Amino acid sequence: MGGESLRRTLYIISGPAGAGKSTTSKRIAGRLAKSAYIEGDLIDHMVFGGYEMPWLSQYHTDLIWQNILSLANNFIHHDHDVVIDYVAFMHNAEYIASGLEQSGVSVKFAILITDEEELLRRDAERQPQFRMGHRCIEGLKEIRRSNPPEHHIINTTRMDVDSVVEEIMGNPVFLIDS
Amino acid sequence: MGGESLRRTLYIISGPAGAGKSTTSKRIAGRLAKSAYIEGDLIDHMVFGGYEMPWLSQYHTDLIWQNILSLANNFIHHDHDVVIDYVAFMHNAEYIASGLEQSGVSVKFAILITDEEELLRRDAERQPQFRMGHRCIEGLKEIRRSNPPEHHIINTTRMDVDSVVEEIMGNPVFLIDS
Repeated sequence: MGGESLRRTLYIISGPAGAGKSTTSKRIAGRLAKSAYIEGDLIDHMVFGGYEMPWLSQYHTDLIWQNILSLANNFIHHDHDVVIDYVAFMHNAEYIASGLEQSGVSVKFAILITDEEELLRRDAERQPQFRMGHRCIEGLKEIRRSNPPEHHIINTTRMDVDSVVEEIMGNPVFLIDS
Repeated sequence: MGGESLRRTLYIISGPAGAGKSTTSKRIAGRLAKSAYIEGDLIDHMVFGGYEMPWLSQYHTDLIWQNILSLANNFIHHDHDVVIDYVAFMHNAEYIASGLEQSGVSVKFAILITDEEELLRRDAERQPQFRMGHRCIEGLKEIRRSNPPEHHIINTTRMDVDSVVEEIMGNPVFLIDS
């Protein structure tokens, strides 16, 4: 119990486009004393020449996750908590959890979902260049099809951001056993 | 000679704000068949809680360079050439060159400088939120004070971007011995 507060925590915030991954992730990172915010899309976009759509190339997806893991390990070695904001499936979260070099890191995996109507409503509120339209729904379906454990899913349809943040930070149900 | 074309190359494109690091780096990355573009400022901004200005904190600067090196190694293992766009001094470039896990990687270090008037002129052409004003000149002076080897410096005052790119990619004078 004594050293509990010194344990580092790594959060993986997943969900379809429009579900609120970025807002939630930044809010969590902002509540932590010393934290890193890793935006998967930025890591993805580092590939310049020879770019392939990540969902079309397992090779490219593996490289993105390897890069995210390397950054996470560096930040944890430097005593930062880490928040990863990216579409992650259960096996991606397990890859990160099992690849951490430092022992005793708590890994929380939360998949934000909403009802379809709410997802479209939130998407329409974004700046035009970030709107996905009905492709949001495809993202939601793809996550459902991957059949993740229910306890990692949080339906945020009727929740405000702070409630979502408090639930993810406070509820041990989101922990991955590592 | 035979295997020369298969060697990976890592470029470190340095210089003060306004000298054209991003434009030059992206142009180089775009000419390579399979490349990664690592923007140091993005790596820097991943630190969220507990952020310190990088030039005020050696600890934070070391963490950024460690992150850049990890990404570079991952990309090189996956057969990408790498372009790093960040204010780098000679010792930063040497840290990267000596930390590469794969042997036989060519490392090119180019410091873009311009005359002071030209630096201010280019700065004024940027979008307002990116303009640095006279702080550009401080950046230029800081790089000069660090006294880097002359052969890593390229004065781009009277050069267009393509000429700069061709000079950096084609001239072996920018190579760091590793």
